[in-house]
Amino acid sequence: MYNLYDFLPSGNGYKVRLLLNALNLPYTLIEKDILKGETRTEEFLELNASGRIPLLQLEDGRCLAESNAILLYLAEGTEFLPADRFLRAKINEWLFFEQYSHEPNIAVVRFWMTHGGPTEEQKAMLPAKMKAGYAALDVMEKQLNQTPFLAGEHMTVADIALYAYTHVAHEGEFDLSGYPSINGWLTRIAARANHVLITDT
Amino acid sequence: MYNLYDFLPSGNGYKVRLLLNALNLPYTLIEKDILKGETRTEEFLELNASGRIPLLQLEDGRCLAESNAILLYLAEGTEFLPADRFLRAKINEWLFFEQYSHEPNIAVVRFWMTHGGPTEEQKAMLPAKMKAGYAALDVMEKQLNQTPFLAGEHMTVADIALYAYTHVAHEGEFDLSGYPSINGWLTRIAARANHVLITDT
Repeated sequence: MYNLYDFLPSGNGYKVRLLLNALNLPYTLIEKDILKGETRTEEFLELNASGRIPLLQLEDGRCLAESNAILLYLAEGTEFLPADRFLRAKINEWLFFEQYSHEPNIAVVRFWMTHGGPTEEQKAMLPAKMKAGYAALDVMEKQLNQTPFLAGEHMTVADIALYAYTHVAHEGEFDLSGYPSINGWLTRIAARANHVLITDT
Repeated sequence: MYNLYDFLPSGNGYKVRLLLNALNLPYTLIEKDILKGETRTEEFLELNASGRIPLLQLEDGRCLAESNAILLYLAEGTEFLPADRFLRAKINEWLFFEQYSHEPNIAVVRFWMTHGGPTEEQKAMLPAKMKAGYAALDVMEKQLNQTPFLAGEHMTVADIALYAYTHVAHEGEFDLSGYPSINGWLTRIAARANHVLITDT
């Protein structure tokens, strides 16, 4: 059985829980409160030098970090990660897009908004973050206007990764009303996924 | 033959050129000056909705964006991407680490420093960016103290991805003198890689 070191309000952790549930893979949840520095202890840093959750521990004790690397590992051989070389490349493209263009804007702004509001320093960065967040949503909308899921006709780990923070983007005060294709996609994923509890919404 | 849309000073583009050269894959370079908005034209946005380089175009016209997704695509079946499932997961882990924890700090600071120096707004962000950049280097140093390459005994796309901006980190005023394992690794990659011209160093 897997051990999953996780912090329940984390969307990055949520992705992994969503896929574990969709695949009916049992796991032991080991909660680490990042706000209390529980991932910066010497013991945890031995497991993951980056000091971050989610962290997946295999039965043999080996550990995997980085939410999207964990998704790719767990999805291998399943419907969520098809074998076709180009399709896998497109899925990877979305996963890197998620970590570079989506999460640092949409997830970070949401974190600020749901943890006492942005500080003065964060307020100065807010317009740029909001603009970049909407730019990421624009890219998704354009694709979802053409195909029902991000990488084409079927739901893959690309959808799971981008669903995690998109479906709570409103908590970061992102207005999704101008994104009909994204809204349709959110509904399709919610209907399709074997949902886990979203502890923070 | 591949078309590579690229901007030569880009380290993200450099990664792809480095791997294409190491694999002796011929390609046509199509330069796009990001500083002149050449990746934001309607024509380019049709190829890549994110408006970013590098962009790899296959012979059949299909396009792949996101430097690390391109690396994984090109390296499939080669020594730079072994078949072992866990090893691939560790390589993916480093690739996501690169885009989330390394590039946004080390590459961004280097960009500021080499393009007229940081603006007032950027100056306010500089201490946090430098701190996070050194934290990323610390994680690499810890691994490279244990294994000659990031994912173990052999050079993989993880090394190519992280080499790109680490070997020019000094241009962002990062001091690598306290990182003996990283310096040894840089030397090993430089000796091992079939180097392309680094146009901007």
